[in-house]
Amino acid sequence: MKVAISKKTNNWYYIKNLEQEYHCKEGILSIEDLKSDMCSITSTKGVEFTIFNASHYDYVQKMKRSAQIIIPKDLGYIASRTSMNKETILLEAGSGSGFATTFFSGICKEVVTFERVESHYECAKKNIELRGFSNVRIELNDISQVLQEQNSNLPQFTTIFLDLPEPIKVLTNISSKHLVNGGHIVCYLPSTRQVDELVEFCSHKESSYFVEEISESQIRNWRVNSKTNRPQHHKECDFTAFLVFLRYLG
Amino acid sequence: MKVAISKKTNNWYYIKNLEQEYHCKEGILSIEDLKSDMCSITSTKGVEFTIFNASHYDYVQKMKRSAQIIIPKDLGYIASRTSMNKETILLEAGSGSGFATTFFSGICKEVVTFERVESHYECAKKNIELRGFSNVRIELNDISQVLQEQNSNLPQFTTIFLDLPEPIKVLTNISSKHLVNGGHIVCYLPSTRQVDELVEFCSHKESSYFVEEISESQIRNWRVNSKTNRPQHHKECDFTAFLVFLRYLG
Amino acid sequence: MKVAISKKTNNWYYIKNLEQEYHCKEGILSIEDLKSDMCSITSTKGVEFTIFNASHYDYVQKMKRSAQIIIPKDLGYIASRTSMNKETILLEAGSGSGFATTFFSGICKEVVTFERVESHYECAKKNIELRGFSNVRIELNDISQVLQEQNSNLPQFTTIFLDLPEPIKVLTNISSKHLVNGGHIVCYLPSTRQVDELVEFCSHKESSYFVEEISESQIRNWRVNSKTNRPQHHKECDFTAFLVFLRYLG
Amino acid sequence: MKVAISKKTNNWYYIKNLEQEYHCKEGILSIEDLKSDMCSITSTKGVEFTIFNASHYDYVQKMKRSAQIIIPKDLGYIASRTSMNKETILLEAGSGSGFATTFFSGICKEVVTFERVESHYECAKKNIELRGFSNVRIELNDISQVLQEQNSNLPQFTTIFLDLPEPIKVLTNISSKHLVNGGHIVCYLPSTRQVDELVEFCSHKESSYFVEEISESQIRNWRVNSKTNRPQHHKECDFTAFLVFLRYLG
Repeated sequence: MKVAISKKTNNWYYIKNLEQEYHCKEGILSIEDLKSDMCSITSTKGVEFTIFNASHYDYVQKMKRSAQIIIPKDLGYIASRTSMNKETILLEAGSGSGFATTFFSGICKEVVTFERVESHYECAKKNIELRGFSNVRIELNDISQVLQEQNSNLPQFTTIFLDLPEPIKVLTNISSKHLVNGGHIVCYLPSTRQVDELVEFCSHKESSYFVEEISESQIRNWRVNSKTNRPQHHKECDFTAFLVFLRYLG
Repeated sequence: MKVAISKKTNNWYYIKNLEQEYHCKEGILSIEDLKSDMCSITSTKGVEFTIFNASHYDYVQKMKRSAQIIIPKDLGYIASRTSMNKETILLEAGSGSGFATTFFSGICKEVVTFERVESHYECAKKNIELRGFSNVRIELNDISQVLQEQNSNLPQFTTIFLDLPEPIKVLTNISSKHLVNGGHIVCYLPSTRQVDELVEFCSHKESSYFVEEISESQIRNWRVNSKTNRPQHHKECDFTAFLVFLRYLG
Repeated sequence: MKVAISKKTNNWYYIKNLEQEYHCKEGILSIEDLKSDMCSITSTKGVEFTIFNASHYDYVQKMKRSAQIIIPKDLGYIASRTSMNKETILLEAGSGSGFATTFFSGICKEVVTFERVESHYECAKKNIELRGFSNVRIELNDISQVLQEQNSNLPQFTTIFLDLPEPIKVLTNISSKHLVNGGHIVCYLPSTRQVDELVEFCSHKESSYFVEEISESQIRNWRVNSKTNRPQHHKECDFTAFLVFLRYLG
Repeated sequence: MKVAISKKTNNWYYIKNLEQEYHCKEGILSIEDLKSDMCSITSTKGVEFTIFNASHYDYVQKMKRSAQIIIPKDLGYIASRTSMNKETILLEAGSGSGFATTFFSGICKEVVTFERVESHYECAKKNIELRGFSNVRIELNDISQVLQEQNSNLPQFTTIFLDLPEPIKVLTNISSKHLVNGGHIVCYLPSTRQVDELVEFCSHKESSYFVEEISESQIRNWRVNSKTNRPQHHKECDFTAFLVFLRYLG
């Protein structure tokens, strides 16, 4: 896949098939040009394009979306705050469109992800397959149910990521068989009321969860060119969800 | 290593050696307790402690610092915005205290990091060794010099992270031998004036660099307990640096 | 003037003339209802409306705009940071659409505002007249020129607000005849480069200006209802301009 | 009162009495110098000071504090969002240390403020007297009680500002005798839970209150000098309270 950016309109095009010419508003890009090593090519309408090989980030832009996705500002902080790395064994629920799954699979040793809505499951499955990582397994199932099974065939996880409206239902079913002592749990919660409930649940005397941090991540984009240097007037996305970081006292 | 948190003072203690009793203000923790599987232990002064196994994040808290470190809010967004993963071959300069190096080494296939200040180099080296990853190489050298060498013994990188005051000096020495076409470059710059200079450099007609995004990452911590639910009055760190994301047009 | 809000669509309507029925998408509001004291009325299409008397804030929503306006987040901080009050004698340039002028006139003892673009001047003049304050004077003129005149017919100001691209041109023409010692000057600057230039100008040894504060004001809106309590996903306006607060050393 | 700023330490000194020499760490400032028109004077230790006449903002810095004060970022947005001006008749409760009272009194036609904690009342009273405005009246009383009295001797207000933990207790006692139709009410609430309760109260079918806006104001300070141009690393105050803006449907 290549990325071509029109120097006239600043439009971005993600070109999957380099074996055929590419048609867009600014004209046609030839197969010869698409396959060349050149970084600047010209369309039949005389419009210049900057062109380069796609990275994983570019692939993600072309993924299909069924549920609302988790965006890089949150994915990044989840990864860094829990020190996610090649040794991480991650449980995720729900899978959503598989965007978080795909990002985390690129980092972790092993990822198991659960989704109980079939349309989301199908979408996530396709996106995971597109990316081609072999260390991830997706299941169409209710994670709370699976955790209660005696022979659930799950590894002992080091980290859990919960993007679902009622994480407490999952937390009540976690035992030290599922999660290492000191293991990280991240809950992605859109409303302060959900945070209220979770914190109250964790503050019970017999609770196995320690609330380490509650935070929001924000990205502010800047506009810098020959005329100005300032933050963009509008943020694409100011708020997505609160991130609650727990530690498991197994 | 274990983490012990006093329920009285909320102090955090990182206990490296579990073969000897641990002394702190709130009393002594016994070897027996430290080595046990219990999540709640009591000191000789009767203070209760929550205790769990340390994760990588906890190890990082104990690392020595020589230069100012790059904190999780920035590390995370750099990783997610460039889709860092097990296939990434990363060039970093300078190493600083090795915090970023250590985090990125946990994710990437291979990391080569350069530092030209000897005291920083020594500090970073120790921190990298402490973490014990084998996929990272640190050199006491000026990256701009090394890039100009014919036989520099460097791999072709997919991603470059530059935490140094004059990234342009490095950029002028990068060729397609060093970096893949479409490769990501991230510059960490504390002042808008540095951003000005970098953007001007990249906007020259013959430039090989496309400015993809300029942003700041921010984390806002919340305080939630039985009495309140609100953002913390003070931010530990509001601003660190601007992140300039470039793509290489090789 | 009254404000009517459709309970169905949440649309806001500003109804200037209460002597005639009001037509909108959700039906017709009768003269009888408009003139009544009722807070809830029903349109001919059966849609319920919340209705109340307009405040100054509502009037402002209906003002015509020629230049980009200065919004409440900035107006408020300018007023509070300079402790604007009934004793304030304010010089403003340029007038823009007269929004800031109108707000400040409601607070200050006297306001003199200059605008050199005729279309803006006409728009601002109308908005000022609409509001009907008698303590404000608008002139179609270049403030830098006027300040250089011997007999400029200007009072000695306590505060100056400059919303123009090159405030330094104005500052070089201010003398203690125009501004009290310790007087506040606020510059509204959209780019960090303008801030750079202004700060450099003020740091010259013989400068009469002390840089007291450089800041940005931000407003974050929340969405709270029976289902959620969270910040809005998108900010209407994240960034407008930097506010540079100077003190005059006359 | 004058403000003197040490050019060596950047310390600010507020000098009330110009009839006696002023002693500080950087030496003594002479009466002659203090009373002169000079903007730069030198202490007996040879330290240079920038000196200018105090503005109202500077006076406020010297006011005594009993309760936590409301700071300019919030005061400003309250004033601009409700279009406070010379016609505003304001009811405030509680008075706290009288900082908000003092700021609003400088703008409004008339201010009546209630405080039921005697120590706060005494502090606020002194600060109000110090400022010397004649359009403000402070009472040591419970506003909810007073509103229930038949002959409360209160004017009909245009705007109400409530800085107390349970604003609903006050709102249930407001009638159209106290507040004009369409009048602004601002509640200052530190916790999302208080916002929850207030919004729920206002959404009852028979409620006389329309929730117009819920917001937070933030100020970000910048550091700009010959070496850098960037936001300050730490914010003095990131969060104070949520501002809930209501309109009265009388």
